[in-house]
Amino acid sequence: MKAVRLHHYGEYPVVEEVAEPKITGPHDVIVRIGGSGVCRTDLHIIEGLLKDFSGITLPYTLGHENAGWVHEIGSAVSHVAIGDTVILHPQSTCGFCSECRAGNDMHCTSPAFPGFTIDGGMATFLKTTDRAVVKLDSSLAVPILSPGTKAVVIGAGGLGHIGIQCLKALTPTEIIVVERSPEALELARSWGADYTVLVDGTQVAKVKDITNGQGAQAVIDFVGEGGAIEDGVSMLRRAGSYYVIGYGGQLNVPTLNIIATEINFIGNFVGKYNDLVELMTLKAQGRVTLHTMPYPLDAANDAIHALDSGQLRGRAILIP
Amino acid sequence: MKAVRLHHYGEYPVVEEVAEPKITGPHDVIVRIGGSGVCRTDLHIIEGLLKDFSGITLPYTLGHENAGWVHEIGSAVSHVAIGDTVILHPQSTCGFCSECRAGNDMHCTSPAFPGFTIDGGMATFLKTTDRAVVKLDSSLAVPILSPGTKAVVIGAGGLGHIGIQCLKALTPTEIIVVERSPEALELARSWGADYTVLVDGTQVAKVKDITNGQGAQAVIDFVGEGGAIEDGVSMLRRAGSYYVIGYGGQLNVPTLNIIATEINFIGNFVGKYNDLVELMTLKAQGRVTLHTMPYPLDAANDAIHALDSGQLRGRAILIP
Amino acid sequence: MKAVRLHHYGEYPVVEEVAEPKITGPHDVIVRIGGSGVCRTDLHIIEGLLKDFSGITLPYTLGHENAGWVHEIGSAVSHVAIGDTVILHPQSTCGFCSECRAGNDMHCTSPAFPGFTIDGGMATFLKTTDRAVVKLDSSLAVPILSPGTKAVVIGAGGLGHIGIQCLKALTPTEIIVVERSPEALELARSWGADYTVLVDGTQVAKVKDITNGQGAQAVIDFVGEGGAIEDGVSMLRRAGSYYVIGYGGQLNVPTLNIIATEINFIGNFVGKYNDLVELMTLKAQGRVTLHTMPYPLDAANDAIHALDSGQLRGRAILIP
Amino acid sequence: MKAVRLHHYGEYPVVEEVAEPKITGPHDVIVRIGGSGVCRTDLHIIEGLLKDFSGITLPYTLGHENAGWVHEIGSAVSHVAIGDTVILHPQSTCGFCSECRAGNDMHCTSPAFPGFTIDGGMATFLKTTDRAVVKLDSSLAVPILSPGTKAVVIGAGGLGHIGIQCLKALTPTEIIVVERSPEALELARSWGADYTVLVDGTQVAKVKDITNGQGAQAVIDFVGEGGAIEDGVSMLRRAGSYYVIGYGGQLNVPTLNIIATEINFIGNFVGKYNDLVELMTLKAQGRVTLHTMPYPLDAANDAIHALDSGQLRGRAILIP
Repeated sequence: MKAVRLHHYGEYPVVEEVAEPKITGPHDVIVRIGGSGVCRTDLHIIEGLLKDFSGITLPYTLGHENAGWVHEIGSAVSHVAIGDTVILHPQSTCGFCSECRAGNDMHCTSPAFPGFTIDGGMATFLKTTDRAVVKLDSSLAVPILSPGTKAVVIGAGGLGHIGIQCLKALTPTEIIVVERSPEALELARSWGADYTVLVDGTQVAKVKDITNGQGAQAVIDFVGEGGAIEDGVSMLRRAGSYYVIGYGGQLNVPTLNIIATEINFIGNFVGKYNDLVELMTLKAQGRVTLHTMPYPLDAANDAIHALDSGQLRGRAILIP
Repeated sequence: MKAVRLHHYGEYPVVEEVAEPKITGPHDVIVRIGGSGVCRTDLHIIEGLLKDFSGITLPYTLGHENAGWVHEIGSAVSHVAIGDTVILHPQSTCGFCSECRAGNDMHCTSPAFPGFTIDGGMATFLKTTDRAVVKLDSSLAVPILSPGTKAVVIGAGGLGHIGIQCLKALTPTEIIVVERSPEALELARSWGADYTVLVDGTQVAKVKDITNGQGAQAVIDFVGEGGAIEDGVSMLRRAGSYYVIGYGGQLNVPTLNIIATEINFIGNFVGKYNDLVELMTLKAQGRVTLHTMPYPLDAANDAIHALDSGQLRGRAILIP
Repeated sequence: MKAVRLHHYGEYPVVEEVAEPKITGPHDVIVRIGGSGVCRTDLHIIEGLLKDFSGITLPYTLGHENAGWVHEIGSAVSHVAIGDTVILHPQSTCGFCSECRAGNDMHCTSPAFPGFTIDGGMATFLKTTDRAVVKLDSSLAVPILSPGTKAVVIGAGGLGHIGIQCLKALTPTEIIVVERSPEALELARSWGADYTVLVDGTQVAKVKDITNGQGAQAVIDFVGEGGAIEDGVSMLRRAGSYYVIGYGGQLNVPTLNIIATEINFIGNFVGKYNDLVELMTLKAQGRVTLHTMPYPLDAANDAIHALDSGQLRGRAILIP
Repeated sequence: MKAVRLHHYGEYPVVEEVAEPKITGPHDVIVRIGGSGVCRTDLHIIEGLLKDFSGITLPYTLGHENAGWVHEIGSAVSHVAIGDTVILHPQSTCGFCSECRAGNDMHCTSPAFPGFTIDGGMATFLKTTDRAVVKLDSSLAVPILSPGTKAVVIGAGGLGHIGIQCLKALTPTEIIVVERSPEALELARSWGADYTVLVDGTQVAKVKDITNGQGAQAVIDFVGEGGAIEDGVSMLRRAGSYYVIGYGGQLNVPTLNIIATEINFIGNFVGKYNDLVELMTLKAQGRVTLHTMPYPLDAANDAIHALDSGQLRGRAILIP
């Protein structure tokens, strides 16, 4: 089968032929890929930023945002059947450790993460396990924001445009979108932004102005690098919460500021399985629309380049 | 009356004569001071670190940890009477803004903070308002830590020794105390520490070892400078929480680490009025014992020097 | 001034002349009434159901849902000024007990409740205190209901029609409105109901059907008598929550059912001051519209009769 | 093998020979029973109270509190091995429904409950599945109770004596134990009770007295029948929480009282798998001691009789 494989950090991946995956464990599921998203994390993988976290040996297949149809199942798989249309939670988990038992999928002590720590879905087939499979008919954990509050969303790209719609669907907060692209800001209005602020050097002042000089109760940062963090911290109100989602840069705050204003920083890694199920429910209800751009698998590097150069709106999807 | 007053940043304060405070508003309360604690924040005030936060003009009277007896009250004061024994919440609040109405005293929009933004309690008398006064018979907000978890306390000094006892009283977590002074570690055992770790270069490795290589669910940092932060972040488990209480240093973490492990950073500023009431209850129940060292008001600088040089155990209290 | 006063339990109140209230305490506020709502609680007061709770001696003035303009203030009142347009939280509170300090206004240990325990607002003037006054520009505490959940609202009357709109504004849950009046059900659609169910003997079966046989995650009961409770409990899903708001009837459930399905019953009394502020914010944002029916003060008993006989849509407001 | 089997509701069970269970599914686990507890639920099963909930056809084997050693495992079982010492969570769950994914084991949509809906552990062997098995080295979910609060525990029997110790280990609340047996009250002191109250007709008045006339913040009712509920509701403070654990009786409260005082009723069914793990941790730490009384399997009815007649202290355990 065809697959988009990374051979060397710092170089674009290669589309090449590899062997199809085979069932080896009782909970294995092989999925025929319908589409695989291209994410900023793929850029970070390619540049080598995640090398120490993944611990994987090159070459391997990229692709951690996957959907398709169940193609083959292991002997103990009972909740999905061959032919089912499915979206995949990025991480397959054991189901038995205390974190899994508590519903904290992302903190499983024996995880596998296709496209990151094992072969991913930018290919014809992908092997995962039954606990990672969501049958299609599904929540994004968002902060509780009461009426009269304001939330800043930094970045209206592949994840940010979903986050804006989820905030609108799940909370009565007023949403301020901060973004470098005038075109993306335009779209943000249609996704539910109450205010849009262009990153032009005056963004912090403008957010302060919109929030009567006090800052926002929450900053949801889908960028996490290149000045976004410094901006975001400056946009926080007393006792406000900073949700770190995008990454790459450095959080750098005097402890004095943290205690004097009781601001909080919250790490967010993918979200739980049930969060993905709830997001699919919002999509089915028409409250969230995914803005996507299809590319054939062979054109994987075109999609990667479009994302890297800031030309992409919404999410690029590779179709095998 | 006598008062300990700061005339110049970077210089020790001076004990001198000043006029007694007078009632001017309907909710004013004048307290005859029984004792005023010396806190690391006083060192930070003296060195000028808080200059921009306080906005105060020198000279003024230090002292934000105060207790004593009600001496005089304003026309609308009804819940305390002259002669009552009281401990003072550091901040006086308006009672009417949405934060006060929600119980979040520390985020009052019209606060005054004796010893920080107005004249404090290292003196014979102090003026505050009725909402800051706790009649003596009282919780420290601590993280919820379930059985089988471990929490690291960095610093077993004036606040840390209270924090250790509160953790013991309020949670079933196992407590690891990390501290530079062998003498303070010895005392920490009697306050409820399950493990003690000397800061000698091997402290991170030792905490990792105690937590089976995984780190602790919570780090409660009463130091916040001089290497404590880097240590503390390294001691955190996946999805762990870092409570910033001590300050002076810089939090400096790659956003990648924050998202990959979903660690959180929580700012803590003083605590709520009701927290102070709960702490006084624990003290009355004998579950928390304050380890104090009395100094006459005239010897204020001896106490400040003992704290600054690391010779103090527990909390120094100035007695006018 | 004119006032609507109750002289005998079991008899309609009388509109008569009484003396105007006077300022006696430093935090008193006298409000010139613009309008006073007529609530099912007024019916319960008239029938004597609340006699033992209020402890008041007849006659006295009814009216606990009040709005108007500040007419006169006590010596310590600073956050409102004469002439301000205000809505009144029903209960005036002390601001100093531990419940007030924690933001739990409704559990103040020294409360006064105009129209219930002291003279109310169906009159030209009303006396309350500054902590009960909301300046007009302001959440209804609602259960957290995630995407894919369903909530049943029983009763689309004076409170219910606000509850439906708040659920729509604050949560992504799907709303099932259960109500006796076809006309009110029609309006419920415009307030945001996703499903409407007429009380005709098949209501429980219909809700079960809408929820795939499982019942709803939450039942919010604005009726609380006459079969509504039995219906509501039958409409609950495993681990569901029953919010008791309307009252008059009896909750009567075997403990076996409570433990076997882990259902919960939550008492709700008025809501906090900040909840009222948030509700006013939703109104200002256009997300909640109050459906009201004005009556002159002299026609108080017409309004009471319309409510009692089920002819009223939304809330009747008495205008002095 | 030998088993304690119920043939007719209303009659004591019979100890008789039955076939040993066999592995049929990939996640099955057969446990050689070391001991099986005798619980008031067994009495309720025998008297037929749970007939409609269990839906089981007689005869079948009782016993839902089980511990022992892994004897045989299915093809997909990987987290326990033959010979492991284990305690069993009462309910075996699917691991894939949204409730299991959220950590809410007790609300699994495809559960099996040995000793209740399938054959139980009062026998030589028991069949369950791998998700119900806790390897021995483990929390009881208890209400958050801050310093200065008081909690009433009704019933110091088989579950109650564990509850008292967990409250002591997990919270700083003061514990009031209410119980019919003077001997059990004596033991309750050693388990951590701060106050003990004999059920002699004055119990409500005594609890009111201990709580300064206000009632307790929480009532944890391990009895749930025979006057305990009426007593418990009367012992609640404003905004207090009533945890229903024991059952058999009827909750019967006017909705007026629920809303006027904002009291809450919370259903509790067994607890989560992780709760059992935490409880085993507390036991391993010596903070909770189980008070047990061993009986041979053949003497099952002696144990049942001792429980039924109120002569038992702690928990009776059947040893095959």
